[in-house]
Amino acid sequence: MFMNSPHTLAEERSAFATGIIPNFATRGFMATSTKPAKGMRDLLPKQMLRRERVIETIKTVYRSYGFEPLETPAAERLEVLLGKYGDEGDQLVFKIMHRGEKIKEAIASGSSAENDFADMALRYDLTVPLARVVAEYQNELPKYFKRYQIQPVWRADRPQKGRFREFYQCDVDVVGSPSLTVEVEVASAVSEVLERLGFAEFTVRLNHRSVLFGLIEAAGIPASLEGDALTAIDKLDKIGVDGVRRELAGRGVEDSAIERLVGMLELGSVEQSALLDRLEATLETSSSGAEGVASLRALVALAAGTPFGRHVRVDPFLARGLSYYTGPIFEIAVADLAGSLGGGGRYDNLVGMFLGRSIPACGFSLGLERILVVMEERGMFGDAETAADVMVGVWDEASAADAIALAGELRAAGLRVDLFPDRDKVGKQMKYADNRGYPYVALVGPDERERGAVAIKSLATGEQTELARSNVGEWLVKAVRS
Amino acid sequence: MFMNSPHTLAEERSAFATGIIPNFATRGFMATSTKPAKGMRDLLPKQMLRRERVIETIKTVYRSYGFEPLETPAAERLEVLLGKYGDEGDQLVFKIMHRGEKIKEAIASGSSAENDFADMALRYDLTVPLARVVAEYQNELPKYFKRYQIQPVWRADRPQKGRFREFYQCDVDVVGSPSLTVEVEVASAVSEVLERLGFAEFTVRLNHRSVLFGLIEAAGIPASLEGDALTAIDKLDKIGVDGVRRELAGRGVEDSAIERLVGMLELGSVEQSALLDRLEATLETSSSGAEGVASLRALVALAAGTPFGRHVRVDPFLARGLSYYTGPIFEIAVADLAGSLGGGGRYDNLVGMFLGRSIPACGFSLGLERILVVMEERGMFGDAETAADVMVGVWDEASAADAIALAGELRAAGLRVDLFPDRDKVGKQMKYADNRGYPYVALVGPDERERGAVAIKSLATGEQTELARSNVGEWLVKAVRS
Repeated sequence: MFMNSPHTLAEERSAFATGIIPNFATRGFMATSTKPAKGMRDLLPKQMLRRERVIETIKTVYRSYGFEPLETPAAERLEVLLGKYGDEGDQLVFKIMHRGEKIKEAIASGSSAENDFADMALRYDLTVPLARVVAEYQNELPKYFKRYQIQPVWRADRPQKGRFREFYQCDVDVVGSPSLTVEVEVASAVSEVLERLGFAEFTVRLNHRSVLFGLIEAAGIPASLEGDALTAIDKLDKIGVDGVRRELAGRGVEDSAIERLVGMLELGSVEQSALLDRLEATLETSSSGAEGVASLRALVALAAGTPFGRHVRVDPFLARGLSYYTGPIFEIAVADLAGSLGGGGRYDNLVGMFLGRSIPACGFSLGLERILVVMEERGMFGDAETAADVMVGVWDEASAADAIALAGELRAAGLRVDLFPDRDKVGKQMKYADNRGYPYVALVGPDERERGAVAIKSLATGEQTELARSNVGEWLVKAVRS
Repeated sequence: MFMNSPHTLAEERSAFATGIIPNFATRGFMATSTKPAKGMRDLLPKQMLRRERVIETIKTVYRSYGFEPLETPAAERLEVLLGKYGDEGDQLVFKIMHRGEKIKEAIASGSSAENDFADMALRYDLTVPLARVVAEYQNELPKYFKRYQIQPVWRADRPQKGRFREFYQCDVDVVGSPSLTVEVEVASAVSEVLERLGFAEFTVRLNHRSVLFGLIEAAGIPASLEGDALTAIDKLDKIGVDGVRRELAGRGVEDSAIERLVGMLELGSVEQSALLDRLEATLETSSSGAEGVASLRALVALAAGTPFGRHVRVDPFLARGLSYYTGPIFEIAVADLAGSLGGGGRYDNLVGMFLGRSIPACGFSLGLERILVVMEERGMFGDAETAADVMVGVWDEASAADAIALAGELRAAGLRVDLFPDRDKVGKQMKYADNRGYPYVALVGPDERERGAVAIKSLATGEQTELARSNVGEWLVKAVRS
């Protein structure tokens, strides 16, 4: 009765013969591998619930700072993306093939240029799309455009443990103001996200591009080798002081300059309270270096009392791989974790790329995938979230409508309710609920019905309680929230 | 002081010369069009806030029914997608080109087969990925897999008003049970979503595949023309009775059968209370048709008192274009709207496609894009949501740190707070807040500071109030929530 009536075999066949029922089950797709594409992941419910919790926290905090959501399409026209990430980046862009006549023409043309076969490519980061949006809607967007964007990006990297070809980026940026207030707001929002997620011991490492370049200049490294010096310093965490020495020598920096620079590295271990004074002294001959120190000093003062201020640590050799920063640079470090949970800074020459002018901007990118892995490893999620607070069982066929009604009443009370769908022995229903991790089962048998009651079984304790039907919702809400 | 110190021009140039600062602003990407790719959309904050509100409601309701979230990758291996959507569908799939050596080889091979140039394709719907997931994780998933999935899909359709090449699908399905309870749960969840979104007058049209085929059979249309008849009936809403007549004749259905079928169309206007009896009488000679009617009767009985029950209307000629349904079929109709807000039904032969066996499944797909358009057109969103409840202005440079602190205090009280970033005249700051639609501005000038107070200006009324600093948060929370 509760089963759907299967249509007759004759119908099935005739419909299949006319091609209107694609009866896939008999078509033999069984040979197809059902793994996700290389380097990509299916996110099953357990992972999704954790992801959604983290994303929800991020959104809530960003919204409380007045940031607004933006989404851009997965695919951009090829010309929008190519040339923005260097030659290496261009190689990692997933291109979308022309369709219809266009792809036939491209093939027939005998062209050997890859780009003749494609018209679009998958989003590679969230910064180029932001720049495109800033250019396209310049008359509609507010003077200060504060947006967050949480979307996947795609890169044809060789997959490795923890590195995927599809992963979420989670960016927050303020476009339109050169004020350091913006740095404080962005870094505070990110710090507050991490605090709310339960990270206690983390550091927001802070540097300024002009300080770093000032140090390189003060060491006597010529302007032409600045880039090489930056690359070497960027590896400090990985290769140590001797590694940096070798790297600099290999790139043609003179020994005397190397030793001056290496001498400065000890600034990295100076107490924070004395560090800015020491930096000021070291950089007094570099006008831009001195301005950089003044910026850091102002920034640290503004941050006092903010979530950012609780975690900031000036680190004069923080370089970050990305060289497009034009002012302060941030990176989040967590104890006992190589690598960072995110980073950012001011980059005034990037967002205006499609407009041909500098537009001030400062932002932060949280490493969502990384955060999830670390929280997982450290047991920061607590117990696995279950899909329901209670499962309503079904006594027999005749009581199915009543079970549906009870599920509705419990949902109206604010509970997440699963309803056992098939007709099965009560013991099997209990076992199913237990396997699913549901804390409670609610059941109305003939006795309970007569008494206007509901039997509630706690699967944690095995205890069974009988409650008046009108009280069940309230009782369960208290029980699951306690 | 609060501005970032720009690095010197010499630095800028030297860094640019070494290639480490991609100074895009001077590189001339200005000629690039900044429109999104054809048929795709940028979702700016105003649209995003509405989208997120609708999606949040959908998730909350689905979670309350015990559904869990699933996400699958944007790209699937080509063989997973091709052949699943018919030849026409295959043409609309966006294919992702091979990369590196592979694409060079493909081009060099002189192949004229499109598929030699690609290895993946963008997700075309959420059903084939579900089938893949069900096959791949069959030992991990629960016996009854209740999942929702809200992700974009991509189709290379010709863009039209309201039809995009990237759009969200929003599916909810129960895999693993043949019970009609599942139909009630799925249709109730969807009905509850629409009720909560503010839709008052909507109908969940309900039919059963066997009823429809039974009617075709009872009209005397031969099995070989069932598919043609279905196609003609599916157009009833658009082309009317005479159109259906012509269509059937054109497809070779005999005049007597056409007249019998057209005679049955009056069933569509029979009162609901009498309809199932009338259908039963009409279909008494068709065993599968009779079973279909019995299913509908059971379903309507089970739905009594549920959100689904409040909106259900049996419609014996509801066909829906998709022919893979094997049992009940649903479609949501809203007054004064051509087309539907979503649809679904039971499809027991699809989810097992990669396993080579039937797996019972029943689901519903909500037309998220459609819902948004209708809610927009009907003014169902109310006032546009603002990005912040209050903007903290900045009196002068010396008070910036205090403004940052005040913003922090108000956020801690639960408010969404924007902070004016630059140093500007107070009048200009007020104007900015007004343009952004913020209801309040909070400001601490020298007088207020002396008194430990904050000035609050309502931008709606122009009224200004002075409050003790410790009371501001609470006062504003009350003001914005009233």
